[in-house]
Amino acid sequence: MNIKPFRTEQWMNDHERQAVYNLTDTCVENLSVNDLLTDDISWMELPLDYGYITGDPGLKKELLKLYAVGDVDNITIAHGCSQANELVLMELLVAGDHIIVFTPGYQQFESIAESFGARFTQVPLLEEKGWMPEFAEIEAAIRPETKMVVLNNPNNPTGTLFDRAFLERLVALCRAHDLYLLSDEVYRGLEKDVPSVPDIYEKGIATQSLSKFYGVAGLRLGWIKASHEIMDRLNNRRDYNVISSGPLVDYFGMRALQERDRLMERSKALIDANKATLRKWLKDNPHFHIQIPETGTVSFLGYDYDIESKDFALSILDDKGVFFVPGWCFSEEYHLRLGLGKNPEGFRKGLALLSAFVKEKGFTLR
Amino acid sequence: MNIKPFRTEQWMNDHERQAVYNLTDTCVENLSVNDLLTDDISWMELPLDYGYITGDPGLKKELLKLYAVGDVDNITIAHGCSQANELVLMELLVAGDHIIVFTPGYQQFESIAESFGARFTQVPLLEEKGWMPEFAEIEAAIRPETKMVVLNNPNNPTGTLFDRAFLERLVALCRAHDLYLLSDEVYRGLEKDVPSVPDIYEKGIATQSLSKFYGVAGLRLGWIKASHEIMDRLNNRRDYNVISSGPLVDYFGMRALQERDRLMERSKALIDANKATLRKWLKDNPHFHIQIPETGTVSFLGYDYDIESKDFALSILDDKGVFFVPGWCFSEEYHLRLGLGKNPEGFRKGLALLSAFVKEKGFTLR
Repeated sequence: MNIKPFRTEQWMNDHERQAVYNLTDTCVENLSVNDLLTDDISWMELPLDYGYITGDPGLKKELLKLYAVGDVDNITIAHGCSQANELVLMELLVAGDHIIVFTPGYQQFESIAESFGARFTQVPLLEEKGWMPEFAEIEAAIRPETKMVVLNNPNNPTGTLFDRAFLERLVALCRAHDLYLLSDEVYRGLEKDVPSVPDIYEKGIATQSLSKFYGVAGLRLGWIKASHEIMDRLNNRRDYNVISSGPLVDYFGMRALQERDRLMERSKALIDANKATLRKWLKDNPHFHIQIPETGTVSFLGYDYDIESKDFALSILDDKGVFFVPGWCFSEEYHLRLGLGKNPEGFRKGLALLSAFVKEKGFTLR
Repeated sequence: MNIKPFRTEQWMNDHERQAVYNLTDTCVENLSVNDLLTDDISWMELPLDYGYITGDPGLKKELLKLYAVGDVDNITIAHGCSQANELVLMELLVAGDHIIVFTPGYQQFESIAESFGARFTQVPLLEEKGWMPEFAEIEAAIRPETKMVVLNNPNNPTGTLFDRAFLERLVALCRAHDLYLLSDEVYRGLEKDVPSVPDIYEKGIATQSLSKFYGVAGLRLGWIKASHEIMDRLNNRRDYNVISSGPLVDYFGMRALQERDRLMERSKALIDANKATLRKWLKDNPHFHIQIPETGTVSFLGYDYDIESKDFALSILDDKGVFFVPGWCFSEEYHLRLGLGKNPEGFRKGLALLSAFVKEKGFTLR
């Protein structure tokens, strides 16, 4: 099946290792095993067999604490949130189905669906509306063959947080049209009063991982939460491409979740420090603008200069070693994806180099 | 997309944890991290970021040693051999294509292809021919829309080893018809003079993992070897569902391969001990028959009793705690899949219980 190149991922594959200051990575500064598991080496004796197929019950019990309702059979494990999303899209859709996605957003949803003959409509997130969509545009996008709405909450790259009121309205719409609602919650962390979609909707599905807010992307531990009925279908498909995540990853994941308060506090401190730096920096750099997100690690930095985002990103990488994913990867020009969770010293230096770069280049304004 | 239940995997999901004596597991007795990495804790400081996207170069260099030709760009990493196979099938085939598989065999190939509208022909492996196919039947199965032949070498569940002469003949056939040749080599270990398919064919693809012969299924480390041209396509798709395997798994995998001689010796000793037990046991149990495979960890035990394989497997599991995957899972009755790599003491006890079971039940012969 033909699938389009994944612009964001390919951009990172091609350029990330050249970065000295990675301002675009959406993970919180990564932990090592030592950081994660002080004084615990019990897992070194774990047999490296397949382990529990849909995830270790101890891990799943910890995961359940992230949700308001459910039992361990409402959860299954995948290789990162990307495989989790792929499983959901491939299992619940067929050729000819139609889905609704948001733009700028994560290309995976539409491109996987398109690869097997499903169709999609992109509803724009409007910068002037705080990167929120017009609700009427979602309603207008529904067709007889529409089967699913896909959210990314918080959204990559805009940082949009779809709040409880919005979600409840969207759930009502999905229920009225019998649509699945897939909510990729990989950037979820410390939101207050923002429900996870399957907690409020019987055809709601949440995907998530430990990659972003927990700082352990290298575990590649993702999961899916949904109703038992949906889960049975997903677990059937999982036999073909996941089988299990293995005892080691399940154990490390369980321990990361048991240390959730410590890890969340660490993440919050890093993000808060970077946001403070950013606010200060914006005052001195009036030709940049951004909506600093309430939560999550991802944001979308706009600029007024007359240079396309791809050229901007390549040029500053070559000149200063500062790495951005350009808005071009999200079909949204004059923006750069800005990650908020990395080392504050590097973040500060990277922004200082960004100021110096635009000054030296003397770009004209649009 | 609709996909059939994966009989073997579902059978294991449903019953494996009830096993006292698992005689059907196709992995060599599993190692722990301690068994794998004596005195090495350097990896505990590895940052748990995404790491190298298509696999750590150190890991890939070790993997290359398993092949006669190629460079690190001929290899990419996946979540086990199952995701590796899925990637190949999904990328290289489209709806309406036709593939040729062997039966009894690993259901994954045909069911994934079928899920997106490809078709398949099963060429039988004939027990009376040492579980080899009639070559003319492969030739006869080729249609204008045939795009790929899929092997599993050694084959699950029969243990068939397709040797150099067979592979060279098959490659000539595939080349004449411009077909891909996917060779799932997950059971490969200590074969002599049996080439890996991409080493002898430009449209050949090998998939493999550390799950079976290396005893570290829990790492979930699989890989694909193919031409640069095929690899570019697979890496494009990988952005959607793998991204990376992470630094920890890559490091453990690299170390397992560096210790290959030790691990292979261990595996061989376990398998040889079990084969000796099996040979002895067969002499006293004339109503069972088997072709003991030259290499690999999997074999297919036939019996003369008048009881279907599913009932046989369920009954002996309940009565004796001895676990088999029945031939029913492979659409081949009156057989049980017998794994050859587990603990020799458990293997011996399991076979003794199998003798006791058929004696107690007094099954009539077919």
